[in-house]
Amino acid sequence: MAKFERHLFVCTNRRPDGSPRGCCASKGGEEIAAAFKAATFERGLKRVVRAQKAGCLDQCDRGVTVVVYPDEVWYGGVTLADVDEIVDSHLVRGEPVQRLVIPDDQLTGIERPSA
Amino acid sequence: MAKFERHLFVCTNRRPDGSPRGCCASKGGEEIAAAFKAATFERGLKRVVRAQKAGCLDQCDRGVTVVVYPDEVWYGGVTLADVDEIVDSHLVRGEPVQRLVIPDDQLTGIERPSA
Repeated sequence: MAKFERHLFVCTNRRPDGSPRGCCASKGGEEIAAAFKAATFERGLKRVVRAQKAGCLDQCDRGVTVVVYPDEVWYGGVTLADVDEIVDSHLVRGEPVQRLVIPDDQLTGIERPSA
Repeated sequence: MAKFERHLFVCTNRRPDGSPRGCCASKGGEEIAAAFKAATFERGLKRVVRAQKAGCLDQCDRGVTVVVYPDEVWYGGVTLADVDEIVDSHLVRGEPVQRLVIPDDQLTGIERPSA
């Protein structure tokens, strides 16, 4: 047994209808998470790579957000049509799909305040 | 803006009552996730570290499971009483709490099959 080679989280957070920030659930997060799981199993990656649902990944307004660890690669606006490409390029061959990557300077994390 | 310095996921998966594998939700996963979020905010780590809920992390039977990326540190059997120690030691000082770490050889990941 071992660590997962890669661990992919799909935001499936649901906000109330009409919420101004929108939510990933209303944009297909659940279906996309299921598609990632199915695609990794089809490639024989069960327990090598884990693809699963997560709560809010805090990159709202970008469409469905996906993060891949330990690579720390963030994808925004992911649709069902992107799943196979991400799986084959990134999870199988180790090459992130650059056109979907959220640039670091657009992520919502911040530097640790100095003591 | 930037990536999160660390990203902590708490399993809050819920299985039907009486499921033989049990589930993290029935062992306090939701409350533990909320406690991690509150504790990181109290330490001024909002947006530096993100602590959030996730679906099944696939280390069932160990009690509530937590994984911290990009470190790839897995904790098993986490209780509310462990939250402050993990936050102060690991998230603030960068020192994982060894007594709670799941050893690599007990994790459910596997090596990639050779081509």
